Amino acid sequence: MKLKDRLNHFLHNQALKHKLYVIIFESDTPAGKLFDVVLIVCIILSILLAIIESLQGLPSWLSTPFVILEYLFTAFFTFEYITRIYCSPNPRKYIFSFFGIIDLLATLPLYLAFFLPGARYLLVIRAFRIIRVFRIFKLFNFWMEGERLLTSLKESSKKIAVFFLFVVILVTAIGTLMYMIEGTQPNTQFNNIPNSIYWAIVTMTTVGYGDITPATALGKFLSACVMLIGYTIIAVPTGIVSVSMMKEYKKLKGFACPNCQKTGHEENATYCKYCGHLLHPDEKK
Amino acid sequence: MKLKDRLNHFLHNQALKHKLYVIIFESDTPAGKLFDVVLIVCIILSILLAIIESLQGLPSWLSTPFVILEYLFTAFFTFEYITRIYCSPNPRKYIFSFFGIIDLLATLPLYLAFFLPGARYLLVIRAFRIIRVFRIFKLFNFWMEGERLLTSLKESSKKIAVFFLFVVILVTAIGTLMYMIEGTQPNTQFNNIPNSIYWAIVTMTTVGYGDITPATALGKFLSACVMLIGYTIIAVPTGIVSVSMMKEYKKLKGFACPNCQKTGHEENATYCKYCGHLLHPDEKK
Amino acid sequence: MKLKDRLNHFLHNQALKHKLYVIIFESDTPAGKLFDVVLIVCIILSILLAIIESLQGLPSWLSTPFVILEYLFTAFFTFEYITRIYCSPNPRKYIFSFFGIIDLLATLPLYLAFFLPGARYLLVIRAFRIIRVFRIFKLFNFWMEGERLLTSLKESSKKIAVFFLFVVILVTAIGTLMYMIEGTQPNTQFNNIPNSIYWAIVTMTTVGYGDITPATALGKFLSACVMLIGYTIIAVPTGIVSVSMMKEYKKLKGFACPNCQKTGHEENATYCKYCGHLLHPDEKK
Amino acid sequence: MKLKDRLNHFLHNQALKHKLYVIIFESDTPAGKLFDVVLIVCIILSILLAIIESLQGLPSWLSTPFVILEYLFTAFFTFEYITRIYCSPNPRKYIFSFFGIIDLLATLPLYLAFFLPGARYLLVIRAFRIIRVFRIFKLFNFWMEGERLLTSLKESSKKIAVFFLFVVILVTAIGTLMYMIEGTQPNTQFNNIPNSIYWAIVTMTTVGYGDITPATALGKFLSACVMLIGYTIIAVPTGIVSVSMMKEYKKLKGFACPNCQKTGHEENATYCKYCGHLLHPDEKK
Repeated sequence: MKLKDRLNHFLHNQALKHKLYVIIFESDTPAGKLFDVVLIVCIILSILLAIIESLQGLPSWLSTPFVILEYLFTAFFTFEYITRIYCSPNPRKYIFSFFGIIDLLATLPLYLAFFLPGARYLLVIRAFRIIRVFRIFKLFNFWMEGERLLTSLKESSKKIAVFFLFVVILVTAIGTLMYMIEGTQPNTQFNNIPNSIYWAIVTMTTVGYGDITPATALGKFLSACVMLIGYTIIAVPTGIVSVSMMKEYKKLKGFACPNCQKTGHEENATYCKYCGHLLHPDEKK
Repeated sequence: MKLKDRLNHFLHNQALKHKLYVIIFESDTPAGKLFDVVLIVCIILSILLAIIESLQGLPSWLSTPFVILEYLFTAFFTFEYITRIYCSPNPRKYIFSFFGIIDLLATLPLYLAFFLPGARYLLVIRAFRIIRVFRIFKLFNFWMEGERLLTSLKESSKKIAVFFLFVVILVTAIGTLMYMIEGTQPNTQFNNIPNSIYWAIVTMTTVGYGDITPATALGKFLSACVMLIGYTIIAVPTGIVSVSMMKEYKKLKGFACPNCQKTGHEENATYCKYCGHLLHPDEKK
Repeated sequence: MKLKDRLNHFLHNQALKHKLYVIIFESDTPAGKLFDVVLIVCIILSILLAIIESLQGLPSWLSTPFVILEYLFTAFFTFEYITRIYCSPNPRKYIFSFFGIIDLLATLPLYLAFFLPGARYLLVIRAFRIIRVFRIFKLFNFWMEGERLLTSLKESSKKIAVFFLFVVILVTAIGTLMYMIEGTQPNTQFNNIPNSIYWAIVTMTTVGYGDITPATALGKFLSACVMLIGYTIIAVPTGIVSVSMMKEYKKLKGFACPNCQKTGHEENATYCKYCGHLLHPDEKK
Repeated sequence: MKLKDRLNHFLHNQALKHKLYVIIFESDTPAGKLFDVVLIVCIILSILLAIIESLQGLPSWLSTPFVILEYLFTAFFTFEYITRIYCSPNPRKYIFSFFGIIDLLATLPLYLAFFLPGARYLLVIRAFRIIRVFRIFKLFNFWMEGERLLTSLKESSKKIAVFFLFVVILVTAIGTLMYMIEGTQPNTQFNNIPNSIYWAIVTMTTVGYGDITPATALGKFLSACVMLIGYTIIAVPTGIVSVSMMKEYKKLKGFACPNCQKTGHEENATYCKYCGHLLHPDEKK
């Protein structure tokens, strides 16, 4: 058998693929659980590594083992990423799924670091892989809650986008106004419009660093107005999300219409709101 | 034909007016879409121009083209404003509409700048014209959401006004009290009542710049109280807006099924969830 | 007629009393409206006076007229307070009512200032008298909204008190913990427990002045925890107030049971929940 | 009778145990009330003692009485803790109950201080014992409200945990990104990743100390984004808690009228609002 045939055989070995799939993508078997635990530990260790490395005053003899460890982690994650593609029944779907992209981004940093020094800190993107921890501990309820939260946020995303655009326009206008008022003061920190917009955002969101503060009476008056506006309009996203969660809460979890398979029916519904079909045909008898 | 007649003819040329109206006010035709896209691009460019100009350390050879560009933009917006008035079927209504006022304010700054240096930064009011972007992309849903948000905010505006007056009275009283407590300290920044009121607003709204902070024990105690009050009463506008949005959402659900007369249907429902009847039989034809 | 008789006659002159009552307490007659407008203007002027006086760098020739004006305002408010007591049909009730106490407190400061220098700034309590402005402009709807807001806040006051006590206990414990962690650092500002508690409140309420900030790694970690706690538990008062407003909104405005006179009935109620009597006996026929 | 027998007799003296139980655990008898009041006073005094002791500039002759007082309080609380175990019908249950653990933690600090100087400030944990104050004043309603608050928070704890994990992951990623952007600036305070994560938390929660602030334009842009995110996602816990409180409130309204079986009665209702029937006929007897 030639090398090409061997490779071909390996690439189409369904039995191996399925075995790997069960270990890597699922967590019901002991091997699957073990793999997931090892993975989470590696992710957390590699993040801790990056954090510790950033501290000043580390003894110099530590740098070599740290570099080696980092290469080992990257090699492991690269290998894991390739195996995931290999054993996935639908590789394209995996690659472009949320977790597929996170997995790729979590692997790249060290490779990018050959060209861009500093890029290797991006490996903190690995943090997002921790979301997988939920699967291991079989915390399905947690997972469900997360899904529900996302659904209600998605539903209100349009309203929130409108609110966001409004806030962006407002801070641009306020920032420019403030630049006109305070920009002529000596030693002012409102020395250009982008800085003034930054100040407007710091103030409107009630963060209030205090690195840029108004010096004139008029500037202070405008600041006070911006604060009061920010303090009041925070009510808008909160109201949006509350109402949307209230709606979501009235819906049956994951129940699909037997005719059109669509979900999102309210608790008191008898007929499907999309196709008019009976939702619980058996109960009706 | 004399000049006066020509002008008269031009001013009453209904065919031209209608053609221009379709291009400028609507966005269903290719020409209308193109006009809107050009307009938005001009608005964003003119804002960016103002922002870049405010940066220090720009090479001096840039100032002449910048001034020219600014005049061009203003000329374009002035021409657009006049055309809008000209082709509008009801010019007075347009001039005093929300967008009419914004369009005027967005055109004036450079003219005002002849008298008031600095006034030209007001052209950032143009930012508010971006709201029109929604129309181009036919994001009617977004637009609807914005309308609904405004409706529920308008409904709660009286409650919010009462809350505002209460906050203004409270910060005035607290600011004066703090001036009495801290104003006698050497090097205090509570050196007059307006400054103390400014501090009270900064604290109450949880912005907390830290440019003015209490130095005495009594001052710190009062600050702590103001913070706790501010932290708690932020619940009031939030509660107002939430309830008002909930009402708005329930009003929407006030639509009754033509068959069983029951209400409580969701926006995306096609069939009645109680009896399975079509909700909007006429639209279906 | 002797002096004593005259005084007696004056004190029991019901016609005069009623005439004054209509002018001072009501605002339906032209005289009543005029009196209210004059009163509000005086209140705002006397507050502005106190604010302007606190500014440094005022020309010295201004101080004499300012003192005179202040005495005039105090004389006017004192006279008004005495007249209110005189013409009130039930003086005791007025004196101990909300507005009665505010009126007294707004009159006292200048008298107190003979003993306590600085006390005269307390005249800003007059600000609270502005609440009366609502009556003049006949903004009954505003007034009603304020009443409803108060009712729903009162209803949730017990829950909010529990929350407050919890927050006070929490910041005491966190402040002490922080004092243990940071108090041993050189040049620390966590130099005693009250200061540390003040810091805990500044942080928990997300005000964040930055006048006291942690220096050690452990201190920063604890700060981060306190911030996250503060950021999350702000949801509690908001939730309380939202629910309580939602309840309030379901109730009929100001409708009283014809039998027991109690209010607070829900819109869908047929019988009084307190006494079981029919709420709308006429409709039932 | 030997010592061992005496001890044995004492340990099984049910009459004494019950007498002590009524005094210590209950507050219906005069002795029980007195004990509770003494306890609360001791708790508050011992906390004040710790706070006063932490102040600088106390006269040195005060230190001896302070130490004595502290030992007396600790002795009292130790004795109280042992008595509680002794007279409790189910000692194990008491020891591992919420109050049992708080009572133990409130007693330990001075003992720990022999080994760890500074540990004695932990006696502020005693603050949590104040929660018992509610029992004395028979504020059962308050207590109920607290219970209800806790119930609705517990119900939403899973959703809040998901939100928390998400926030932790987000600030880790943002902190690292910021370290990459700002870490190379001279004199930057983003000198390591933990500090940058601390900054991300300070910013995201809208605390905004201002001890660490971005210096570069890119850093300011990222800060502005983080602020806007923080300003918006604060809506999530608020929405969660609001919905959960609304559920709790509706559950309360799930009580059905014994006559017409309809639900939706308010807490303070005596009669059914639909049919006028008594809601709790048995209590009325």
